[in-house]
Amino acid sequence: MKIIFAINAGSSSLKISVYSAEDRNATPREIANAQVVGLTSPSTKLTYTRGNENIYKNHQVTAESQDDAFSILLDTLLGDEKLDEVRSKSDIAITCHRIVHGGKYESAQIITKDTYHHIEALSDLAPLHNGAALGIVESCIRKLPDTTNIACFDTQFHMSLPPHVYTYPINQERARKNGLRKYGFHGLSYSFITRSVAKFLQKDVSQLNIIALHLGSGASACAIKGGKSWDTSMGLTPLSGLPGATRSGSVDPSDVGKLSPASTEKLHISKAEQILNKESGLSALTGTADFAAIAGADRAEHPQHALAFDLFVDRVSAFIGSYYVSLEGKVDALVFAGGIGEKSSRFRSAVVSSTACLGFAISDASNDSISTKGSVTQDISSEDSRSKVLVCQTDEQIEMACMCHSKDELWN
Amino acid sequence: MKIIFAINAGSSSLKISVYSAEDRNATPREIANAQVVGLTSPSTKLTYTRGNENIYKNHQVTAESQDDAFSILLDTLLGDEKLDEVRSKSDIAITCHRIVHGGKYESAQIITKDTYHHIEALSDLAPLHNGAALGIVESCIRKLPDTTNIACFDTQFHMSLPPHVYTYPINQERARKNGLRKYGFHGLSYSFITRSVAKFLQKDVSQLNIIALHLGSGASACAIKGGKSWDTSMGLTPLSGLPGATRSGSVDPSDVGKLSPASTEKLHISKAEQILNKESGLSALTGTADFAAIAGADRAEHPQHALAFDLFVDRVSAFIGSYYVSLEGKVDALVFAGGIGEKSSRFRSAVVSSTACLGFAISDASNDSISTKGSVTQDISSEDSRSKVLVCQTDEQIEMACMCHSKDELWN
Repeated sequence: MKIIFAINAGSSSLKISVYSAEDRNATPREIANAQVVGLTSPSTKLTYTRGNENIYKNHQVTAESQDDAFSILLDTLLGDEKLDEVRSKSDIAITCHRIVHGGKYESAQIITKDTYHHIEALSDLAPLHNGAALGIVESCIRKLPDTTNIACFDTQFHMSLPPHVYTYPINQERARKNGLRKYGFHGLSYSFITRSVAKFLQKDVSQLNIIALHLGSGASACAIKGGKSWDTSMGLTPLSGLPGATRSGSVDPSDVGKLSPASTEKLHISKAEQILNKESGLSALTGTADFAAIAGADRAEHPQHALAFDLFVDRVSAFIGSYYVSLEGKVDALVFAGGIGEKSSRFRSAVVSSTACLGFAISDASNDSISTKGSVTQDISSEDSRSKVLVCQTDEQIEMACMCHSKDELWN
Repeated sequence: MKIIFAINAGSSSLKISVYSAEDRNATPREIANAQVVGLTSPSTKLTYTRGNENIYKNHQVTAESQDDAFSILLDTLLGDEKLDEVRSKSDIAITCHRIVHGGKYESAQIITKDTYHHIEALSDLAPLHNGAALGIVESCIRKLPDTTNIACFDTQFHMSLPPHVYTYPINQERARKNGLRKYGFHGLSYSFITRSVAKFLQKDVSQLNIIALHLGSGASACAIKGGKSWDTSMGLTPLSGLPGATRSGSVDPSDVGKLSPASTEKLHISKAEQILNKESGLSALTGTADFAAIAGADRAEHPQHALAFDLFVDRVSAFIGSYYVSLEGKVDALVFAGGIGEKSSRFRSAVVSSTACLGFAISDASNDSISTKGSVTQDISSEDSRSKVLVCQTDEQIEMACMCHSKDELWN
């Protein structure tokens, strides 16, 4: 039996899911998960669940850094006498880390000194995105010296993009030298969605064509052809493509220079990137990052909420149209996932209605009865829909655990 | 009778088309056109046609500025004794000017001191694009003091974009203060295409739904719903959307900072805009701005040409898919226009083939026999195409002349 910790470090949160795998043929099984949220806010909280039992829920803790949060989570897990499988640090075979930008890595990597430095260098491409995860890798190396660290990348699923899709029409020497191309993100989620939908539709993964939408506080779309990523909406970094809670998505590159109170000539680009990633998006239109509030607002009373909702429907529908063409109209399913995709029946309904000309149609009853406690993949299509319309409760944590569990090195 | 000069100032060229309009009910008729090209190259050349007669073809001239070129063109036209309608400066009733960025102007504007200063201020939004035209307006005011100057904007056709389409999800106060929104360009061309296609299909303009592609050294796409612009691929400036000969089109906004040999921190954005507008696009991939060479190259011998061709087909097809959704599948015609759209049968064939799932189909024979000497609008659809596929020889010059000709002020 092996114990795998799947670790997801956000900018203000840290989550560890604990899996046990009996042998190399058994799927890892979640036995506990623990997270600290609100690291950058005054009130930092711990939630811990073992099996189906909530041990702590929003329990106040003191943590000022990711490293503090990691210590709290480790103490919580090791200190729980009822978590039989994790008695001591040496029980933890693997910690796997969600790393946003993995450059051209095509698979999860065991973290050695070399890979660590390479990942660190990649962070230049996306300085806003890799930092927290790399900090936790360091914490693990220090606090769990006998555990194998594995990096799972949000980019790796998209290494199948064809050259005419991933190439930017810019100076090719500079592009090569600086690694400027479309990478794509949310790959752990798309990998999970692909496996789950293939299973649900009883199709071989290599035969599966879907348009997948991962819509959360970060949002993206992906055309998956024959089980592989063919196109996706994010690019060099997660900034381009769809808007998110605080992220603008694609804007005219000329906007970049015009967003700061300072003059264009003096504005440094890193500042503009910060503004476009952290101070834009649906919350810049509405004042809230809570999509349920945006979707549920009265349109006449809250015209900015209506605008944000319509804008998001429009941008998502545009990618569905374009990926329908990429897949030559051969679409097994349109798949909604991520916080908004899984929870907002109103948003799903609006998107399907706006793309009805492509043959998508849903049953309102099925759409309204989606439950986060239901199956991983749920069907909301109506009988006359030309393609299935599905809701998939995506799970990046177990996707990481499965990736690591399948590594030969773990069992040799 | 009124004489109208339609003037189009490019970065290295200046073109004047001369129209005569008998009365306010007659369509302006082209009686001559003259242009100077190669202003920034060592060899500057004049071409002059009166009626069907070529008077000069690539005649070497000396001109170092737009103003020099304007003097040459004016002398050529006024000095031609056989051009009966233009005997002296006072015969020229109107000079109309193609202005790329017109901010929120919804129609052509007579240029007064106020409008001139407003247009000048708008140039801050698109400093690379309005400069040459404004220079020529000044030349006209100085050299033709009795002539009315009218500004025709490439943006005005797109003032019908709905708010959820033209809004960028960024800080709304900064957006309002700095005029940051989608404006769209090539509007004179789209206005011409809309009129011509409606006439060709014998439909009322207000009932016309088309996906129009203006593909030249600058390239854009437009969804036209009920005769009005509903969405278009260019944005705040002509930079976003499709790639052009030297323009990148949309890239991850994070790319903007990573394109210069200098470090990101020190790169000023105006330099990055210059690189993305002038040193990118299909010519950055292939070394040539000649699309016929790109489309005609042997794929094995010239993999970069093949890449550029496939990339351009992919980006254009993506907009067709997304605009098909915008128009709810109710598309009267897919329309190709602009240098590439009108001339490259290979490109048209590739795009229609890649969007076949939307019901578009062409007759190869019709596609291959398109002639620039044929009708304004030519039909290349096959019989089984669900929508028409058309080629329209767009003409921004006559569109400007018609806009001015319809102004009450001209006839009162």
